[in-house]
Amino acid sequence: MTDNRRAAAQFIATLEGRDWDGWAALLHPDVVYELPQSRERIRGRERYLQFNRDYPSEWHLRAKVVLADQTDGCVWFDWVVGDEQAEGVVFFSFDGEGLITRVTDFWPEPYDPPSGREQLVERW
Amino acid sequence: MTDNRRAAAQFIATLEGRDWDGWAALLHPDVVYELPQSRERIRGRERYLQFNRDYPSEWHLRAKVVLADQTDGCVWFDWVVGDEQAEGVVFFSFDGEGLITRVTDFWPEPYDPPSGREQLVERW
Repeated sequence: MTDNRRAAAQFIATLEGRDWDGWAALLHPDVVYELPQSRERIRGRERYLQFNRDYPSEWHLRAKVVLADQTDGCVWFDWVVGDEQAEGVVFFSFDGEGLITRVTDFWPEPYDPPSGREQLVERW
Repeated sequence: MTDNRRAAAQFIATLEGRDWDGWAALLHPDVVYELPQSRERIRGRERYLQFNRDYPSEWHLRAKVVLADQTDGCVWFDWVVGDEQAEGVVFFSFDGEGLITRVTDFWPEPYDPPSGREQLVERW
């Protein structure tokens, strides 16, 4: 397991454990966090930490797939709040020291299937 | 570059080039394609090929990040149709021969930012 892959896994594990010191230690002080779907951006580790500490609800995370190379990483994860479950994907950029310099979250939401392909598709 | 990473990159490149033979050669005959957001599933390379050949519009793909290990892979890509642009994420499972056995697509759509975090966030 590469160091960056370990850091990507630790990112999720420390969030799940509310280990804020351990989580912040993975981040570059000037980390940039982006949510492309809402076009929101948070600059800096301190603000990003506050964002996560303040995030409402008793959320839980479970990593499904963790991948990384020398410059990038990603985790596909389950997000669980009570009886509700969703999936998310987070991408990371790493600097040469293995610190996370950029985090990009995607929160894909349910939608109705387009028509015209029913003959090829099953639903679940 | 690992063989699986090369296959993940080729998946996007062959789709973009409408190189259907090259694309199908990356897939296990019993590949399963899933779209969790619409809960759609397509079983088998032939149906999945038809799905892609029939997909409407003059779409174009450009890989932004490609990652893979011995069992999994993913690509974060831009999807462009005319003046419109979106982002997508695709995950792969690979068998021991390097064939893709599972493809999972996410198409995150824009949403309005929740209130209560304006003091931490900039918009773009």
